[in-house]
Amino acid sequence: MAKQAVQHPVIFTGRTVPHHSRCWTRVDVCGTASPRDPSSIRNEDPVLSLSPGNMAAPSTDTCGLMERSVRERVPPLLTDLYQFTMAYAYWRAGRHQEPAVFEMFFRDNPFGGGFSLFAGLNDCLLFLRSFRLTDQDVQFLRSVLPPNTDPAFFDFLRGLDCSAVMIRSLPEGSVVFARVPLMEVEGPLAVVQLLETSLLCLVNYASLVCSNAARFRLAAGHQRRLLEMGLRRAQGPDGGLTASRYTHIGGFDLTSNVQAGFLFGIPVAGTIAHSYVTSFNSLEEVWPQTLVTANGDPNPVDIISLTKGWLRRVCELMGAEPGKIHEGELAAFLSYAVAYPQNFLPVIDSYSVGCSGLLNFCAVALALCELGYKPVGVRLDSGDLCRQSIEVRRVFRLCGEQFSVSTFNSLIIVGTNNISEESMAELNKKENEINVIGVGTHLVTCTKQPSLGCVYKLVEVRGRPRMKISEDPQKSTVAGRKAIYRLLDADGHCFLDLLCLMVEPPPEAGCTLTCYPLGGDNSSVSVTPAQVTCLRKEVFLKGQVTEPLCSAAETRAKVQSSLQTLHPRHKRLQEPDSYTVALSVKLRNLVTELQKGSNSDSNFLLAN
Amino acid sequence: MAKQAVQHPVIFTGRTVPHHSRCWTRVDVCGTASPRDPSSIRNEDPVLSLSPGNMAAPSTDTCGLMERSVRERVPPLLTDLYQFTMAYAYWRAGRHQEPAVFEMFFRDNPFGGGFSLFAGLNDCLLFLRSFRLTDQDVQFLRSVLPPNTDPAFFDFLRGLDCSAVMIRSLPEGSVVFARVPLMEVEGPLAVVQLLETSLLCLVNYASLVCSNAARFRLAAGHQRRLLEMGLRRAQGPDGGLTASRYTHIGGFDLTSNVQAGFLFGIPVAGTIAHSYVTSFNSLEEVWPQTLVTANGDPNPVDIISLTKGWLRRVCELMGAEPGKIHEGELAAFLSYAVAYPQNFLPVIDSYSVGCSGLLNFCAVALALCELGYKPVGVRLDSGDLCRQSIEVRRVFRLCGEQFSVSTFNSLIIVGTNNISEESMAELNKKENEINVIGVGTHLVTCTKQPSLGCVYKLVEVRGRPRMKISEDPQKSTVAGRKAIYRLLDADGHCFLDLLCLMVEPPPEAGCTLTCYPLGGDNSSVSVTPAQVTCLRKEVFLKGQVTEPLCSAAETRAKVQSSLQTLHPRHKRLQEPDSYTVALSVKLRNLVTELQKGSNSDSNFLLAN
Repeated sequence: MAKQAVQHPVIFTGRTVPHHSRCWTRVDVCGTASPRDPSSIRNEDPVLSLSPGNMAAPSTDTCGLMERSVRERVPPLLTDLYQFTMAYAYWRAGRHQEPAVFEMFFRDNPFGGGFSLFAGLNDCLLFLRSFRLTDQDVQFLRSVLPPNTDPAFFDFLRGLDCSAVMIRSLPEGSVVFARVPLMEVEGPLAVVQLLETSLLCLVNYASLVCSNAARFRLAAGHQRRLLEMGLRRAQGPDGGLTASRYTHIGGFDLTSNVQAGFLFGIPVAGTIAHSYVTSFNSLEEVWPQTLVTANGDPNPVDIISLTKGWLRRVCELMGAEPGKIHEGELAAFLSYAVAYPQNFLPVIDSYSVGCSGLLNFCAVALALCELGYKPVGVRLDSGDLCRQSIEVRRVFRLCGEQFSVSTFNSLIIVGTNNISEESMAELNKKENEINVIGVGTHLVTCTKQPSLGCVYKLVEVRGRPRMKISEDPQKSTVAGRKAIYRLLDADGHCFLDLLCLMVEPPPEAGCTLTCYPLGGDNSSVSVTPAQVTCLRKEVFLKGQVTEPLCSAAETRAKVQSSLQTLHPRHKRLQEPDSYTVALSVKLRNLVTELQKGSNSDSNFLLAN
Repeated sequence: MAKQAVQHPVIFTGRTVPHHSRCWTRVDVCGTASPRDPSSIRNEDPVLSLSPGNMAAPSTDTCGLMERSVRERVPPLLTDLYQFTMAYAYWRAGRHQEPAVFEMFFRDNPFGGGFSLFAGLNDCLLFLRSFRLTDQDVQFLRSVLPPNTDPAFFDFLRGLDCSAVMIRSLPEGSVVFARVPLMEVEGPLAVVQLLETSLLCLVNYASLVCSNAARFRLAAGHQRRLLEMGLRRAQGPDGGLTASRYTHIGGFDLTSNVQAGFLFGIPVAGTIAHSYVTSFNSLEEVWPQTLVTANGDPNPVDIISLTKGWLRRVCELMGAEPGKIHEGELAAFLSYAVAYPQNFLPVIDSYSVGCSGLLNFCAVALALCELGYKPVGVRLDSGDLCRQSIEVRRVFRLCGEQFSVSTFNSLIIVGTNNISEESMAELNKKENEINVIGVGTHLVTCTKQPSLGCVYKLVEVRGRPRMKISEDPQKSTVAGRKAIYRLLDADGHCFLDLLCLMVEPPPEAGCTLTCYPLGGDNSSVSVTPAQVTCLRKEVFLKGQVTEPLCSAAETRAKVQSSLQTLHPRHKRLQEPDSYTVALSVKLRNLVTELQKGSNSDSNFLLAN
């Protein structure tokens, strides 16, 4: 019977909301995308199915507002000073217009896992589209750069934009692996250097928190609804909003964050906190003390007497001691039920679940049922959630049978108590009756690993491949512009990402090829893909975004379809098999030549 | 001799910048606080002393712009949905205007330490001052709250502000301890409930990252300059900017974040990255190939020939193999030196410090010295920083003596390589010659503990104390409005924070008092303070901020003076002695009574 509740997911407030056209920074909307008439999406049934289809795609106007938001949150000065000192030195040497190529990648999959998700691309594109320094920016730079900086450089800065920048990228929401270049940024050397910090800042956390959400989703299984509720513990307001957005994309269903509902159309959820419960002391505080029936009978019923009657019967049924029941808690529940009789889902552990909260809930819920309403369920916020949920479900069933109230068979149980990925996985293994799990701190701050470590490295200047040959091999880079292919096996699982020179012909399905896995012992492997996908495409050219920007819902669907191509052995949360990323023979030869060149004798000291 | 460099801290770009009056979100400044004329702060000497006095305090106009920024980053909808459902239930029961008091505190000191710092108050006050829901906010809430919500509630929401809210708080930048209420928020029940998530979001990360910076500062000692450079790894753009601001307040000297320099007057630093070095291939790319002398002799000197000559002499002196020297690296150094001859501080580990980078640096620096310039120093970004810095210093001394160049005795060494608190402490114990340390990821994302866990709990309604009596004692709260006193010993060290009832007379210096330590075994202790400080004062009343807002520089000074009152045994980074937070006898009696009341039989079921 409890399974039924699982199959009918519920927003416990509970409404799926339209995606409103509004800037993150609260500008007035003066465009064409006025919010849908709220009445058109009203739904009298608190049990709503949640599908991405319920969320509207962002309108063109929304994109404009998002762009303004990105411009405001990521001004061109939100970068490291050395980007400007380097730009000056390039400019001074006349090298600023040289065509250059940077690549963005991370060195290790986060959380000790076998994969990551790529997110933040949309924001990067909006950032690039509006990248321009103001007079005030330039005036400030004048005051911080050394006084001998040539004044003409500031004119150059004032005129900069990204009209000569080209981006090739994986799609947002793709499964990605360490050392695979996610994004290639091509353009004038000084410009693409200046973009580094901002692009990294936009991709690093978005990808990290999206990957974290996907891991929580894998740990939780697909049956349960997941609620993100981390705003108060996030690393700043924007961190909180970014978390709500990308955890939804990564697989969460609901958020507590109202602004995220407003901006991104993510379904919002929430009812009451402990403070609400503890603010009540006695039944005298309940007002109004009557409630009309759901079918509209005009005669209001004394809800307090009705509930007291039910409480006596519940106590009898359970053999509970009425003396241990908190009157203030009952008053709080009643007060909320009178306000929202169709959305009754209180937190029941303010005092004692078994001795007070559960009994009070059952009494109020039975009274609501008697008046024709459907209570929604309960929230547990402390202690052993699994054990408690089983006991709560048992009591629901008992009441349902004893009092012949079928609604009690579809009540939901929400669990929220400092859930980590480990406790989520644990919970998924143990018997329990929890339908919705709320996660805050560990999800949004990514406690297991709070940063991704994406880097942005130069791979080509003026058509010549460049690489960093560090004494620390982990910090060496792979030179040259690349094409990247994902090889899939006959089951549709990806098994190898191949980095090739841009000029090489793509690998072909059914044809065996030789390549050199990164991080291996320098020996080659031969593989025969059943399918080959070209991973990156051009997304930004001549100052314009060349592909339609995806909505959160579309990217969320992309995440799930991309994860489906991943073999379970790579998806395993603990000790996954490592995924192979390899260089083509030609790319490997290039790298070897450059390394050799680097070690060969240099005789420039003899020349004049 | 190296010590001298330590005593003359250096910004390696290097300029201390004025605090500009500009909104975080890049509005045009139309107020009175135009930026200082940059020329007035120009300083031809790259060695600048850094003192907070170099930073201008925010003008009134800046506060206005900051307020707008807070309003844009923290709109009233950036909160949990349940705040609104609870507000509705209070409103429906006619309880929304009841006077209520919430307290903010955290349960454990972060990072396993003995203290925390309190930050984020200024932003909270600006948030409160402008807290107002727009028509659009209310329209959105209509669409997410249950359809039977009384329409008059939305009129109530539309008219809400914080004119009836009163805040009593510790000063921003104070040393604080677990379980001490930092902030007391008093006002109409529905309003102060609505503020919860936003206030927590503004205090949690600010306090956490400020405390983290203070720990890094303690680990580093006071000699070294500390540079924050975490923007690219931060949890979002605003996370990065917040980190730059509060790590400076917590004890860092410099930031790489230009926008933080712009907004908060934090000195900015940075020169070049590896990409700059690897973008050069040969000396032909250096342009111009000449440099005039520092004293203005109009005849330009061939800097390449000059440097080659020095490189030969350096190689000879060091017995180095010229064949291992990277021409591209030398070209990069020369190119930067030509652009910024007074600010030469390259990263020297792109290929090999000992075989190439250090030799190239010395050659270019000696050429610069010959032309009358003062090179600044080098940056090390990989490997064993301590060992390398000693070797680098040895070579500097050797060159300085051999070639009689005194500037080589004051070159600085900057170390940046994934520094954590542990590696910082380690580095501080080992012999090394590092003058400036740059910290990124571990500082800004607080890897050791990425969230503080501040909570916001109801302690009084309608003059009646309220508390949550959880089955989990850690989650129980301490009821009632409180006054908080810090007791100091004869040495000026604080040793106990005392929570009293608001109505109690304050403890007196020299008088013995009895109190009950929290988390103890319920036994009392007797203490005699040499001094007593009242910790909180009113900072917000009738919609207005009642104390002048502190500048970043003032709060930074407050942090250091507050830390000085802390005994070293509590300041210890590992296994500190825990600081005592205690209840007065009267407050303890209140809590005991409430707990007893909670356990006493309740007979409301018998009443009608």
